[in-house]
Amino acid sequence: MWREAEPERLVYMELQDGLVLIELNPMFAPRTVKQFTALVEDGFYDGLPFYRVIEGFVAQGGDGSDLGEFSEVPLLDAEFEIDWPADASWTAVQSPDMFAPQTGFIDGFAAARDPAGGKAWLTHCPGVVAMARNEGPDTSRTDFYIVIGQAPRYLDRNMNVFGRVIHGMDAVQSINRGRPADDGIIRDEAASSRIKRMRMGNQVAETERLTALVPDTSHASFQEVLDQRRDRRQPFFHNKPPRVLDVCQVPVGGRATR
Amino acid sequence: MWREAEPERLVYMELQDGLVLIELNPMFAPRTVKQFTALVEDGFYDGLPFYRVIEGFVAQGGDGSDLGEFSEVPLLDAEFEIDWPADASWTAVQSPDMFAPQTGFIDGFAAARDPAGGKAWLTHCPGVVAMARNEGPDTSRTDFYIVIGQAPRYLDRNMNVFGRVIHGMDAVQSINRGRPADDGIIRDEAASSRIKRMRMGNQVAETERLTALVPDTSHASFQEVLDQRRDRRQPFFHNKPPRVLDVCQVPVGGRATR
Repeated sequence: MWREAEPERLVYMELQDGLVLIELNPMFAPRTVKQFTALVEDGFYDGLPFYRVIEGFVAQGGDGSDLGEFSEVPLLDAEFEIDWPADASWTAVQSPDMFAPQTGFIDGFAAARDPAGGKAWLTHCPGVVAMARNEGPDTSRTDFYIVIGQAPRYLDRNMNVFGRVIHGMDAVQSINRGRPADDGIIRDEAASSRIKRMRMGNQVAETERLTALVPDTSHASFQEVLDQRRDRRQPFFHNKPPRVLDVCQVPVGGRATR
Repeated sequence: MWREAEPERLVYMELQDGLVLIELNPMFAPRTVKQFTALVEDGFYDGLPFYRVIEGFVAQGGDGSDLGEFSEVPLLDAEFEIDWPADASWTAVQSPDMFAPQTGFIDGFAAARDPAGGKAWLTHCPGVVAMARNEGPDTSRTDFYIVIGQAPRYLDRNMNVFGRVIHGMDAVQSINRGRPADDGIIRDEAASSRIKRMRMGNQVAETERLTALVPDTSHASFQEVLDQRRDRRQPFFHNKPPRVLDVCQVPVGGRATR
């Protein structure tokens, strides 16, 4: 029930508190993944801070100025949703979910879809990685955020979601927060957590690479996991919970080993 | 729109990474609050570890043996839900919510209710503090957990929820995790984060006490906050989100100042 994450789709992000592995999603965000991959390969993010960190919401990192007009990196067009791919393997979770007609998993990622409109999108669950932007939909560039709190699903279909943390979420949770009164902005550079180094998996020497296994969400045993979480039969449940599942509350973390 | 948390209902929990303030809820869990308060006053928790910590789920602390039969501390009866208090001030959030007929806020706490059955209960949102237990409903004693990930709402009406973190959730998020393969259990005592000291607010010298302000969820301005979160009118929202609110995604943290 496990598949191995491909090194070309895997980001090694080294933080002070440990290594974080991010799996990219070119199916939903091909242009964002391409540009982000090139930036990682160039060492663009090395040494940059998480400069806007709001407890229970997001940790946003990058150079903090690229949302302005002086960057040489091109702006990215919106990649908020895709036409539903006919050949995609969809494992249904909930229909309707509070925020979408249907939720489910596709290739390990929590997602939602609207059969009437024929669209699908990645949902803002904890650990999701997406591009920050300005007011316009096509204003992403290099700054990104990681969701660190209760799923802000109202952002769904409004951001370029392009990856998810599959290992090291505890290190992400140790990133220094900003003050709520400052909207999480950390102006004191010494107070911000930094990205020591970011590399693509295929830039990492083979002897150093980790074997990163993620749940195969199209496997029958994953379906069983979902069924058990939906139908809590254990006597522990004195009051039987409603037979519903929050797609963001299903554990789909990976296992990274040497 | 703020009210001050009363020192008799406020727990000062000192962790290695900072101070955590927990507001207790005697309306929903009077017996649990009474016993927990007495334990805190006796210094019961000082030095004890968080011995079961699952990333994205809960940090469970205490002596780790009290769920057994050798404790001198009495078992607690279930306090999973209450009869709806006629005079309670309820600020509605969502009806129906995916997990309950109605959600809302009562006295600063996220809650749910079932008008048909006349019952109300506290919801398992991030930062919620509840008693651990064995299989039987009346088997809580001293061990407790803090929710550190996506709301595990399937636990609602099944646990003695008795408080919530109003300050220092970043310190809680820095608690060392156990391995998922070990169900989060940390057997190596040196690897576990510990409670340096836990005191009730009224045990803290007045000169050391913090002024802990929490949102007054019955105030009209809090209703406005909810309305704005439900109806995202900003041009930033290229795709307008559905007009729904997740009660666990509304920020209700406090402000602690000297």
